[in-house]
Amino acid sequence: MGRIGRVYAENLAHYVPAANLVAVADTRADVAQSFASEHCVSKWYENHHDLLSDKDIVAVAVATPTSTHEQVVTEAANAGKAIFCEKPISLSIEEAEQMLAAVRRAGVFLQMGFQRRFDSGYLDAKRKVDAGVIGRPVLITLTSRDPFAPPLEFCDPKISGGLIIDLGIHDFDLARMFVGEVSSVYATGAALAYPEMKSVGDIDNAVVNLVFENGSLGLVQLSRNAVFGYDIRTEIWGTKGSLQIGYFRHTPVLVMTKEGITHDVVPHFIERFATAYLNQIQNFVENVLTGSAPSVTGADALAALRISVAATDSVRDKKPVAVHCKPRQDGTE
Amino acid sequence: MGRIGRVYAENLAHYVPAANLVAVADTRADVAQSFASEHCVSKWYENHHDLLSDKDIVAVAVATPTSTHEQVVTEAANAGKAIFCEKPISLSIEEAEQMLAAVRRAGVFLQMGFQRRFDSGYLDAKRKVDAGVIGRPVLITLTSRDPFAPPLEFCDPKISGGLIIDLGIHDFDLARMFVGEVSSVYATGAALAYPEMKSVGDIDNAVVNLVFENGSLGLVQLSRNAVFGYDIRTEIWGTKGSLQIGYFRHTPVLVMTKEGITHDVVPHFIERFATAYLNQIQNFVENVLTGSAPSVTGADALAALRISVAATDSVRDKKPVAVHCKPRQDGTE
Amino acid sequence: MGRIGRVYAENLAHYVPAANLVAVADTRADVAQSFASEHCVSKWYENHHDLLSDKDIVAVAVATPTSTHEQVVTEAANAGKAIFCEKPISLSIEEAEQMLAAVRRAGVFLQMGFQRRFDSGYLDAKRKVDAGVIGRPVLITLTSRDPFAPPLEFCDPKISGGLIIDLGIHDFDLARMFVGEVSSVYATGAALAYPEMKSVGDIDNAVVNLVFENGSLGLVQLSRNAVFGYDIRTEIWGTKGSLQIGYFRHTPVLVMTKEGITHDVVPHFIERFATAYLNQIQNFVENVLTGSAPSVTGADALAALRISVAATDSVRDKKPVAVHCKPRQDGTE
Amino acid sequence: MGRIGRVYAENLAHYVPAANLVAVADTRADVAQSFASEHCVSKWYENHHDLLSDKDIVAVAVATPTSTHEQVVTEAANAGKAIFCEKPISLSIEEAEQMLAAVRRAGVFLQMGFQRRFDSGYLDAKRKVDAGVIGRPVLITLTSRDPFAPPLEFCDPKISGGLIIDLGIHDFDLARMFVGEVSSVYATGAALAYPEMKSVGDIDNAVVNLVFENGSLGLVQLSRNAVFGYDIRTEIWGTKGSLQIGYFRHTPVLVMTKEGITHDVVPHFIERFATAYLNQIQNFVENVLTGSAPSVTGADALAALRISVAATDSVRDKKPVAVHCKPRQDGTE
Repeated sequence: MGRIGRVYAENLAHYVPAANLVAVADTRADVAQSFASEHCVSKWYENHHDLLSDKDIVAVAVATPTSTHEQVVTEAANAGKAIFCEKPISLSIEEAEQMLAAVRRAGVFLQMGFQRRFDSGYLDAKRKVDAGVIGRPVLITLTSRDPFAPPLEFCDPKISGGLIIDLGIHDFDLARMFVGEVSSVYATGAALAYPEMKSVGDIDNAVVNLVFENGSLGLVQLSRNAVFGYDIRTEIWGTKGSLQIGYFRHTPVLVMTKEGITHDVVPHFIERFATAYLNQIQNFVENVLTGSAPSVTGADALAALRISVAATDSVRDKKPVAVHCKPRQDGTE
Repeated sequence: MGRIGRVYAENLAHYVPAANLVAVADTRADVAQSFASEHCVSKWYENHHDLLSDKDIVAVAVATPTSTHEQVVTEAANAGKAIFCEKPISLSIEEAEQMLAAVRRAGVFLQMGFQRRFDSGYLDAKRKVDAGVIGRPVLITLTSRDPFAPPLEFCDPKISGGLIIDLGIHDFDLARMFVGEVSSVYATGAALAYPEMKSVGDIDNAVVNLVFENGSLGLVQLSRNAVFGYDIRTEIWGTKGSLQIGYFRHTPVLVMTKEGITHDVVPHFIERFATAYLNQIQNFVENVLTGSAPSVTGADALAALRISVAATDSVRDKKPVAVHCKPRQDGTE
Repeated sequence: MGRIGRVYAENLAHYVPAANLVAVADTRADVAQSFASEHCVSKWYENHHDLLSDKDIVAVAVATPTSTHEQVVTEAANAGKAIFCEKPISLSIEEAEQMLAAVRRAGVFLQMGFQRRFDSGYLDAKRKVDAGVIGRPVLITLTSRDPFAPPLEFCDPKISGGLIIDLGIHDFDLARMFVGEVSSVYATGAALAYPEMKSVGDIDNAVVNLVFENGSLGLVQLSRNAVFGYDIRTEIWGTKGSLQIGYFRHTPVLVMTKEGITHDVVPHFIERFATAYLNQIQNFVENVLTGSAPSVTGADALAALRISVAATDSVRDKKPVAVHCKPRQDGTE
Repeated sequence: MGRIGRVYAENLAHYVPAANLVAVADTRADVAQSFASEHCVSKWYENHHDLLSDKDIVAVAVATPTSTHEQVVTEAANAGKAIFCEKPISLSIEEAEQMLAAVRRAGVFLQMGFQRRFDSGYLDAKRKVDAGVIGRPVLITLTSRDPFAPPLEFCDPKISGGLIIDLGIHDFDLARMFVGEVSSVYATGAALAYPEMKSVGDIDNAVVNLVFENGSLGLVQLSRNAVFGYDIRTEIWGTKGSLQIGYFRHTPVLVMTKEGITHDVVPHFIERFATAYLNQIQNFVENVLTGSAPSVTGADALAALRISVAATDSVRDKKPVAVHCKPRQDGTE
């Protein structure tokens, strides 16, 4: 029941008519209890084991700390639940592979969380690219800038994976969605705006070059110092045209004074992607109810993680790193 | 259960946790029944009399044709219900005054629907004006352009009140909210893009000048031929700065081809004001539950109607028309 | 050699290869002399009589105070010079008619200054309207906002004609260029941001409704308190689409800080229309050299003046005023 | 007297009052002669030797093919002329060093052409960065996209240096101006939109990562397939804010139809930088006349070339490449 867990829980409680939120769980019993009471959720649990044993529950949304994903998802799979899991799947490729193996063995439904895919802007752009509006994409540039850094303890790469995994994994996922598999990366990065990050081994700015298997080029910019707001932009450059997906303005208000013309900017991801988060969890519920395939697979999550890890390695090793994203032959991953 | 009635009913059924949607009514029994069944509403009625007799119901949202507002609202007031009524309150000033008198006599709660007041852009602008960001407003310009005309039968001024009442009443309401009471209007208008409107006596374009009691100036543009989309803009010009409230883009996507750079536009009011409609009905429910004063009063609705009628007369008579918006001494209107 | 006179003189001295600037004149001899010496102009005069007697001169640009236009233009016509005259032609319709009669009698070339017609934005918009891109125009809205008021002594309507003539005449000219002749106007206006203007009888904000002979509608907003910069915008609404001509940004630079995203605005007309002023005087020179018809005629100037005077009367009389813009039968006006 | 040579010649002939254009030279005698006659230039030459022997000439602007720069600039230096030389200084670092040595030996004035430095947007951004508006820059991203590829014969890296030198050198120059010296680069690139470029060994898209000596990061995107127009943008990200320098619109006109809202884009560099080219050559003339230091030095040109060559090598070698930009101790380079 952290920040993003509450978003899913509130959406499921009130805004997904087809879903019935049976229970919530948090290791902080008071948090779970007060949420349940406030939102008319009939049950609450202090740990995920009890929740996963609840026979009334057919599907779960996992928004626990990333380090616990492997344990929770594996247990949920063994309990036969349909699973929605927030990004990143894991900080470790090996652990992620084990999770996906557990899901396959159990034969349960797993859909991964990458909410940008459910944003109206990205949905519209995807339709236009698929319709050939810009011809064949040859270059994609993706930008993710947070308005400020997380608290230092959350920046620790052992917790967050570091800037490139924590923030960039969204862009790597979009890059794959729009252009295809990545074959190699090169990245530079440093702690420039928050020098104190060096103490935990994290960085606050990074630039990642991508080369795709089809020969196209890509580029990801990541930063924690967009002091004016949350800056998420993507440009896709094709042989016949280009698309720019942006979102600088929050309220549609311009203030015009002697200092110039000013508008505000969407403050952070909760506001920017509020509708996308709702669309995403609605889509998960719908897919479970209709027996459809997951919209974002475990293999998607693993591929984005592989790119993230390779880019993180590249910053450390100061050289290009190959990415191996071979999908499994049986198509299940 | 017309277009806007469904918006309120769906919001109340699913997205206003504090409300319990007890029943819906429509003279088309099948429409009421199928909505109730689809949205898990326990009761449905074929007429408003039966619904208003239902003792389980404490508050009603009236979204019937404008011509029936007087009858339904008066009956609801007599039945002791808290009332939300969609704009315009009526097409007739006399009828509106009778409705407000009935509400006063019954002592019930009445809140009028002007959803733009609940839009984040207008809310933000109001806060900034009140905070003195632009000094004292001296001119307000308001624009409402529909992407296309309603079917000819709905344009008939006997049904819709005509362009100025039907569309402009929102702008007159905003003008009052931002600047104050209007003392006179002058308007020009004609059927220019849809000449067939002349057959029913309506117009498709109008320009209305406002003079406020405090001496400030105003300006309203109304049109049915913004073929590119729904165009709602307001500019407020003050002694120290200005505000522009606009909303041309729907998805944050630019398409860049040899033909130029193109973006789409929000198609119509349902999309533009989806969140505002939800905010508005939530606000009504909250006000009723907490015993607060209505956010938009019957007097507000009557004042906007008076400006609309005066502007309509001005087009016909080709001369300025005075507006009398004196609030009642007892403050109840 | 006032502000705008210097613009023309410098353009003619350096940036119109086909012209040879023979002489300048100013009643302030030192001003004329120092400009001539600084810009390598061979002769300078202390009054227009001597300049107009100079046989080396074939064409003159008149940028004297409006009150002297009638005397200078008439004398220039009698001296057989080709004449460029800055707007407004005069503050008096009668005087303007006498000037045009003098020009006709003398058979000389007269081109009037309305520099917006030579701006790339307006030129492009005109081409698009003529090409049918937006169908038939049914409404035009024009905005002129100065960043601050002129010194009080220049606001005196006896000197400037008042806000509507001084500033609005550009918009009335554009309205005619895009839509056609105006048949009636209604205007409201007041001294709202600069109350001290009342002492000289001027206003600082005005709204003017236009009705065109072809039934289309128009709208002009005029203001002296756009404190953020110079705000010149035009929107043309047609049956198949619309055009917006704007120009809020000066340098293409966005500043993004915690206060929001800010850009500056073009400060005033000299910067906004620098290229248009050059294009305009080049066009005059070219027309004179090639024997072409004037791009902006005396009749254009007179028509814009007639609309301006009618709108000024409308503010005073608080009623609509008819405009008579009949072109002369012989087509010379 | 190629495309850019004519721009300088016309500016010098007409728009730089302090300069007197004495002569032009082109190996195509008819081209030189007709330009001279059309623009009232008193002399013309068929080769640069004769022009450089002309004792009336004190300064020359060199806009010959890059492969001839070394010969022409060295000869001009030996003839004691003040020299303006268009970018790139050379395709070879060794040759460029020899040119600068020749200029030093001759003790003549040399100013290099990088016109973006003279654009109002970049000038304004530089002032703001220097004034600390955005704090300390930590990341700079620069974009140059041409609307189409040059003819294949001009793409040959032996002629143009290839995409990265030909187009990117401007961005490397700006990167140095805003952030400082570059210590290493990594680049990817390919012929993606124009596969025929492979036949001459050129590429049409490239992404270049920069690491600066002060630890900041940079990023350059280069492309030949911005089919909608000329796309030149720079973003500078600082500890306290950011700047975006862009320029998508050419005429300030929006076309609003059922297809959406569309505006055009500046077509190419001649239009985008017309004023900057004029400012630049005026600045050169002024510096020569006042004995000021060059605004853009030979050392600047050499540094930008070194980055360009390193990035080109990086594409070929698929690894990061160090850049050595040590300025000479005597400060003359």
